[in-house]
Amino acid sequence: MSKEIKKIGVLTSGGDAPGMNAAIRSVVRTCAYHHIECVGIYRGYQGMIEGDFKEMGPRSVNNIVNKGGTILKSARSKEFMTPEGRKKAYDNLVAAGVNALVIIGGDGSFTGAEVFNEEYGFPVMGIPGTIDNDIFGTSHTLGYDTALNTVVEVIDKIRDTASSHNRLFFVEVMGRDAGHIALNAGIGAGAEEILIPEEDLGLDRLLESLKKSKASGKSSSIVVIAEGDKIGKNVFELKDYVEENLPEYDVRVSVLGHMQRGGAPTCYDRVLASRLGVKAVESILEGKSNFMVGVLQDKIALTPLEQAIKGKSEIDRELLRVSDIMST
Amino acid sequence: MSKEIKKIGVLTSGGDAPGMNAAIRSVVRTCAYHHIECVGIYRGYQGMIEGDFKEMGPRSVNNIVNKGGTILKSARSKEFMTPEGRKKAYDNLVAAGVNALVIIGGDGSFTGAEVFNEEYGFPVMGIPGTIDNDIFGTSHTLGYDTALNTVVEVIDKIRDTASSHNRLFFVEVMGRDAGHIALNAGIGAGAEEILIPEEDLGLDRLLESLKKSKASGKSSSIVVIAEGDKIGKNVFELKDYVEENLPEYDVRVSVLGHMQRGGAPTCYDRVLASRLGVKAVESILEGKSNFMVGVLQDKIALTPLEQAIKGKSEIDRELLRVSDIMST
Amino acid sequence: MSKEIKKIGVLTSGGDAPGMNAAIRSVVRTCAYHHIECVGIYRGYQGMIEGDFKEMGPRSVNNIVNKGGTILKSARSKEFMTPEGRKKAYDNLVAAGVNALVIIGGDGSFTGAEVFNEEYGFPVMGIPGTIDNDIFGTSHTLGYDTALNTVVEVIDKIRDTASSHNRLFFVEVMGRDAGHIALNAGIGAGAEEILIPEEDLGLDRLLESLKKSKASGKSSSIVVIAEGDKIGKNVFELKDYVEENLPEYDVRVSVLGHMQRGGAPTCYDRVLASRLGVKAVESILEGKSNFMVGVLQDKIALTPLEQAIKGKSEIDRELLRVSDIMST
Amino acid sequence: MSKEIKKIGVLTSGGDAPGMNAAIRSVVRTCAYHHIECVGIYRGYQGMIEGDFKEMGPRSVNNIVNKGGTILKSARSKEFMTPEGRKKAYDNLVAAGVNALVIIGGDGSFTGAEVFNEEYGFPVMGIPGTIDNDIFGTSHTLGYDTALNTVVEVIDKIRDTASSHNRLFFVEVMGRDAGHIALNAGIGAGAEEILIPEEDLGLDRLLESLKKSKASGKSSSIVVIAEGDKIGKNVFELKDYVEENLPEYDVRVSVLGHMQRGGAPTCYDRVLASRLGVKAVESILEGKSNFMVGVLQDKIALTPLEQAIKGKSEIDRELLRVSDIMST
Repeated sequence: MSKEIKKIGVLTSGGDAPGMNAAIRSVVRTCAYHHIECVGIYRGYQGMIEGDFKEMGPRSVNNIVNKGGTILKSARSKEFMTPEGRKKAYDNLVAAGVNALVIIGGDGSFTGAEVFNEEYGFPVMGIPGTIDNDIFGTSHTLGYDTALNTVVEVIDKIRDTASSHNRLFFVEVMGRDAGHIALNAGIGAGAEEILIPEEDLGLDRLLESLKKSKASGKSSSIVVIAEGDKIGKNVFELKDYVEENLPEYDVRVSVLGHMQRGGAPTCYDRVLASRLGVKAVESILEGKSNFMVGVLQDKIALTPLEQAIKGKSEIDRELLRVSDIMST
Repeated sequence: MSKEIKKIGVLTSGGDAPGMNAAIRSVVRTCAYHHIECVGIYRGYQGMIEGDFKEMGPRSVNNIVNKGGTILKSARSKEFMTPEGRKKAYDNLVAAGVNALVIIGGDGSFTGAEVFNEEYGFPVMGIPGTIDNDIFGTSHTLGYDTALNTVVEVIDKIRDTASSHNRLFFVEVMGRDAGHIALNAGIGAGAEEILIPEEDLGLDRLLESLKKSKASGKSSSIVVIAEGDKIGKNVFELKDYVEENLPEYDVRVSVLGHMQRGGAPTCYDRVLASRLGVKAVESILEGKSNFMVGVLQDKIALTPLEQAIKGKSEIDRELLRVSDIMST
Repeated sequence: MSKEIKKIGVLTSGGDAPGMNAAIRSVVRTCAYHHIECVGIYRGYQGMIEGDFKEMGPRSVNNIVNKGGTILKSARSKEFMTPEGRKKAYDNLVAAGVNALVIIGGDGSFTGAEVFNEEYGFPVMGIPGTIDNDIFGTSHTLGYDTALNTVVEVIDKIRDTASSHNRLFFVEVMGRDAGHIALNAGIGAGAEEILIPEEDLGLDRLLESLKKSKASGKSSSIVVIAEGDKIGKNVFELKDYVEENLPEYDVRVSVLGHMQRGGAPTCYDRVLASRLGVKAVESILEGKSNFMVGVLQDKIALTPLEQAIKGKSEIDRELLRVSDIMST
Repeated sequence: MSKEIKKIGVLTSGGDAPGMNAAIRSVVRTCAYHHIECVGIYRGYQGMIEGDFKEMGPRSVNNIVNKGGTILKSARSKEFMTPEGRKKAYDNLVAAGVNALVIIGGDGSFTGAEVFNEEYGFPVMGIPGTIDNDIFGTSHTLGYDTALNTVVEVIDKIRDTASSHNRLFFVEVMGRDAGHIALNAGIGAGAEEILIPEEDLGLDRLLESLKKSKASGKSSSIVVIAEGDKIGKNVFELKDYVEENLPEYDVRVSVLGHMQRGGAPTCYDRVLASRLGVKAVESILEGKSNFMVGVLQDKIALTPLEQAIKGKSEIDRELLRVSDIMST
């Protein structure tokens, strides 16, 4: 990368997550701090193809550090999966004088960035933004901590009504491939059982556990279930199965859904977003490209995009044991 | 009612609602203030039948004014629908020296109270506690204001992600027979359309409205739907119908469910609960029976239980027009 | 007012309050609904003098219904208190083609509106926006319900630490002339005593009440104090006085301050703002002027500005008795 | 420690912090899981001296994972600083059959534990619970993450009113010796300047920074100040100083105070508490004593109590630079 960086583009792509705005703000202000121009690209790669750009000075990101969603909007772009689409995008960036890109998103977004970098040698830097925390190379993705708190607050409310009526609730949370949200929010919310994609608990053990819970004198129970759990039944089928096998239980289902993506980011997500944005821009200015900026063991760390895409984010298996002990 | 009141029983019945604990606290402390004994009855009428009673002094209700759910638990009792069940309940009350009852619940609970009063001449006083606000004789039921705020906060989060992705969300809220929650929370959350049981908007008008919304330049939309809406399709069928007829829309569904029943009560619900509890106890001490204590035009007011049960709580139709104007 | 209304100006003035943005949105969209133009005036009367105007279409108020503060900003204007200032303001309005004004603010702001109307015959309509709820002619001002909930949530947190340490807390809340916040939030938060401007409780009774509270077995206590209480000591002097006279108490002070003005409005404040905005604009279109649009006994009602300014908003004295009973 | 552990005592000491209840629950249930008895000791060391004990089975900690404060209460004990006091405490523990102690608190509490262990060879294990995060040997203390979010949410509200009025706010947060809260919450809240005990910024630089902020077009500013900052003026003196030197600023002060100690713990604090409780009990069962159980680089780690007491918790100085860049 011999070319001098004068203008950096920033975009958000894939599912939105709390903290994305704080990251945009950080990228914009770090550019200003280093006297680099910054361009916001709307609606992810689709806006790159359509040339939907906007110059962003430091005042353009006032009062967004605490806002959920993304002011740059997000979208999926089929066109960017084609060479023609990427060509248009490249031409637009060149025409706008953009020298490098910061992509805030998940692994799908990073794949797009990597291909684009490969084809055009265009400097790209990724910031992990997704509530699912399913990205290798970072212990936390933007939005994950916020989503945990959203889930825990909602289950606290459900627990009020569960314990008033001595009921069993199945609460489905996000996480198709990763049980991070279910496992951590489940422990945080005091769930009796937690079903995650990484672990096939089995239906028998679930019934066993619920029986034991009743016998231990608990009057109500919460089971937290990740969307992608391996138990082979969806949450409504599971309800039917349990009611059939444990008629003493009156089961209710709650699917939390998209509310988990929204809301004001937690302090952690805001600070993390600020740190990642600084590092992304400064890494570009140091001539680096094709990395994801993440956090590992509390330190900001770079991981090659390729690894971030291919690697697998692992849950902390010790937490399964903690969960087990907590439901004593 | 010539017999002197020396001990009052209090119970919660039907679906729980935020503010029930504040009402229990108020009943208990008002009794103490007037040097009357107070007995908590667990699990509603079922606990009355089973003699599940507990003496409650003013310190027994410390630190519950802000707690969701009900410390007395709630349950539905089939046995209380039988004369035998009510006989057992009566005998238990007499044995415990209880002279009068305060019932916190909805119209089903009030019906039980009325029958019981008719059979045994037992003084009963109702306090309306249900999030649905579907009780005649009170502008607000306990828990309704809290539920409105819960719904609005959740839709605020959904809006973050809706507007980041230019999506349409159908949000189903509680209200089988009454559209109070949908109508007020819908306006509060800035919904584009609101579907309620009291009004058959019709599918055509919904499509029309969504088309207009798109044309007006709105990039995302929220439609709030009461469980009991009259449109003839459930919320998932509605999604399919709209996607078929308006392919430009990417629709998501969120069913809020039981979280609406929980959470710390709002200031309004706590103050209302405190006022209603005072009035319920003092009305009993004045020799009154068979009334519901509610709030009408900001004033505490008594309504005969019979009217509270038979009357219909009406929505404020002017709000339909306000909603319409707001979605301009 | 025979002149046809074609363009309405809207401004926020005085202390900001949650719900002001929802009211601005309502005024803007009601204008659009009736095919009237709408102009936002920045920084209250000062912006009127400086001609700081902006045309506002219905999309300009997207996504603000849930935002605290005021997008039109607020300011106090000394210049508007002079005839010269008002002349400039009038000239600017005429030049911009503005035919009528909606003023969102407190009684100071209404006084300005009334003088302006008197001098220039300019149609004005007031919407009460202040957290203090100290305006005659409306049971609720915009922001009041939100402030109550903010206060109650903060005191809930303080109670956690108070009851962990068996401490006494004095919590000062807003309200120089009116005890609405202290009285309602005090009951809502379960305060042992409430000191308000409307009632001189006296120091002796405070000491007596605290002694009784200790004797009754309460391990911690909260006293809520309005800024403008009549007890003759500020909150820190009061702490010293109590610690001197009741050495068994370890007193802490918390002054809540400006946080009470901010935050997302509650559902109630959003719906009220929507209703008031509709009524303000439609009243102007019906040829009315010089009224405040408020809510009385749950109905939207007009009060002449002069009365709104001169009248006194009364607290509900029954609540003093409820508070007394609740601290049994 | 050859003696077999059959009964563990748990207490909370020093200032309370959110997550203490979750830690108590974890200790109690981990004991139950390992078929060990557990005894709750009320009011910290004072209750140990007074023999204020209570057997705690797994159901005794139902529904407290989400509660702020501590159900075991906390207190400071002068008597425990004397050999006589500790003798009484020891005798009580022996009489009750308690073999080991888990102390949840800050470094003052750990010092007591260490002395007690030294004198009586009594196994002790510490869990760091304090919102200030000022303990060596753990990246996070219980309650710290919750306090950060409480502060950030309050400053978000203050920002609403600050930006509506173009004002400067000084917000004082907790932290006598450590700037962790101020630094992280300051970045999270988008503060223009952050004053902490670890860094003497100097009054000149503060004025310079505020001038620059105004010049850059910012209309409002927040300065976050730790209680123990080194600038040599308290927050009210600072207000006067700034208003004298920068008359263009209208300064307001907000001292957040004790509300920072309360509230429902965040998911992070609940999960951390659960993990620390498990490790504390299991470490005792493995024969360990005199350690603090903390978290370092996301892993649970033991630190000798002596080091935890003497070591100094350092702020992340890179955050000072991030803060600087963010206020561009």
